[in-house]
Amino acid sequence: MHVLILGAAGMVGQKLTSALIADGGLGNDALTRLSLVDVIEPAAPVGFSGVVDRLAADLSVPGTAEQVVAARPDVIFHLAAIVSGEAEADFDKGYRINLDGTRYLFDAIRLVGDGYCPRVVFTSSIAVFGAPFPELIPDDYFTTPLTSYGTQKAIGELLLSDYTRRGFFDGVAVRLPTICVRPGKPNKAASGFFSNIIREPLNGHEAVLPVDESVRHWFASPRAAVGFLKHAATLASDRIGPRRAISLPGLSCTVGDEIASLRRIAGDAVVARIRREADPTIARIVAGWPADFEARRAAELGFVAETDFDEIIKAHIEDELGGRFVA
Amino acid sequence: MHVLILGAAGMVGQKLTSALIADGGLGNDALTRLSLVDVIEPAAPVGFSGVVDRLAADLSVPGTAEQVVAARPDVIFHLAAIVSGEAEADFDKGYRINLDGTRYLFDAIRLVGDGYCPRVVFTSSIAVFGAPFPELIPDDYFTTPLTSYGTQKAIGELLLSDYTRRGFFDGVAVRLPTICVRPGKPNKAASGFFSNIIREPLNGHEAVLPVDESVRHWFASPRAAVGFLKHAATLASDRIGPRRAISLPGLSCTVGDEIASLRRIAGDAVVARIRREADPTIARIVAGWPADFEARRAAELGFVAETDFDEIIKAHIEDELGGRFVA
Repeated sequence: MHVLILGAAGMVGQKLTSALIADGGLGNDALTRLSLVDVIEPAAPVGFSGVVDRLAADLSVPGTAEQVVAARPDVIFHLAAIVSGEAEADFDKGYRINLDGTRYLFDAIRLVGDGYCPRVVFTSSIAVFGAPFPELIPDDYFTTPLTSYGTQKAIGELLLSDYTRRGFFDGVAVRLPTICVRPGKPNKAASGFFSNIIREPLNGHEAVLPVDESVRHWFASPRAAVGFLKHAATLASDRIGPRRAISLPGLSCTVGDEIASLRRIAGDAVVARIRREADPTIARIVAGWPADFEARRAAELGFVAETDFDEIIKAHIEDELGGRFVA
Repeated sequence: MHVLILGAAGMVGQKLTSALIADGGLGNDALTRLSLVDVIEPAAPVGFSGVVDRLAADLSVPGTAEQVVAARPDVIFHLAAIVSGEAEADFDKGYRINLDGTRYLFDAIRLVGDGYCPRVVFTSSIAVFGAPFPELIPDDYFTTPLTSYGTQKAIGELLLSDYTRRGFFDGVAVRLPTICVRPGKPNKAASGFFSNIIREPLNGHEAVLPVDESVRHWFASPRAAVGFLKHAATLASDRIGPRRAISLPGLSCTVGDEIASLRRIAGDAVVARIRREADPTIARIVAGWPADFEARRAAELGFVAETDFDEIIKAHIEDELGGRFVA
């Protein structure tokens, strides 16, 4: 099986690459070829003896999409995107990468023709929803995004469903929860603190909490995210039906719940590294985000997320910290 | 006030043109200039003494959109589209006209800059929804179209909301019910019979009814459609809020209700011109269409549709038949 990962140099892309190699394949199919594409050349994968292609390329440049699908990969993970903040700051770039890039990819697959019909897994986002929300967002809730990023993802979902219905490929769009604990350095994303207040204290560093502990949000670990993508890649098409965009399961919990978990697992001294410093701007942004989903359909389709925040922290300590933290 | 109508040569575009001229303007603003654009040159409007521009142009040809917005119209009605059947039969043409054309228009308006912010009224469709549906479709129901046309309209709605949020223009997308009684000759649209069984018998001709009388659907007259567009053009932006796509009110009734109205208004001899000839293909297509909407938000915003089918038939007889029919 030939797997193509677009956005392979990103955090999720790298973890997915490693997981596919560790698993040796997807479902019952052995992994024989891995094509890794990103705007920077993805690192050479470790521990894989099959064919590897690595390419620095921008999908939004006409002709690139044709090139990356020419070898007819069996499964395509389309993770490549400009993130929310940048898509909001740079209107043209967001639409070029997130909308045009996605459409070029979908059209390139369509134009291969000759019966070519790969599984395409597209990472969408809960940003397709815009406040106000019901307390628990149902699977049939409308997509009225309040960001250009959310708009671009919602359009990607619509295109994917139509191209799938037409038989041009076999697509699944998965709406990822906020990934937490996100490894790496703190970044300037408004959502960064959800991860910062866990990751930094476990590393012995201070973290700033800019919102009230009552703030509720929707989470899954990077490990769960990789699990979602693998599951989406192997799900039988007829089980999905014509509605190809799926709100994934996640964990709805408050910042207070996060902190209580951190205290249980790592103790008071670690929790004491969280410094409260209210930021009304961040508080206002976060108030417009969804907090809880029904995700009934995803559960029926077998997608699995963490069910308490202790699991999320333990996964982070195992996967990122080699089992140890700074007490 | 300068009004631009894209799709001005179509049935709704022509009626809208006449109505704006008859009204002398929109809201409190006098109509001083009328720009009429379609793929064929729109007919010269009758009874208007202001400036008229008429242009045969295709929005999906790069450069056209810039040309049509260069004179900075105050209100833009974007009615231009490839219809559902053609968008399904010709994939490339549907996306080119309905998606690219719409995006070119929106971008052309955006790139005028300099504080230019016209009201844009975009005709969307109930085709943005795909079966299965709840019996009564709520305003917050998700858009999972089952046609390329519906996909293109749903994408247009998303773009319009994002461009409006960004302040590039002041958009409203209105999801029109099925227009009935559609004047003119019978066409091959699967929905044609809803109009044919009224229009043809009133003209003394036979009409074929291919489905059961229990089939329920969602209607508004051409007169109501023009009223929707005029109302959408004058609605205060802050009353609409960030969710710019509105499911319009309509009349939910069955084919049996249509026939009962026709009998009340025109008598048994006219109804006898309806010939029943079951068509399982049409029955199957129609079974996938929505039958009833809550349309609560549209009602609150002051959109008004017919409340019984007698009104719809009477409007047709008045507006199209000069008050007379073939008894």
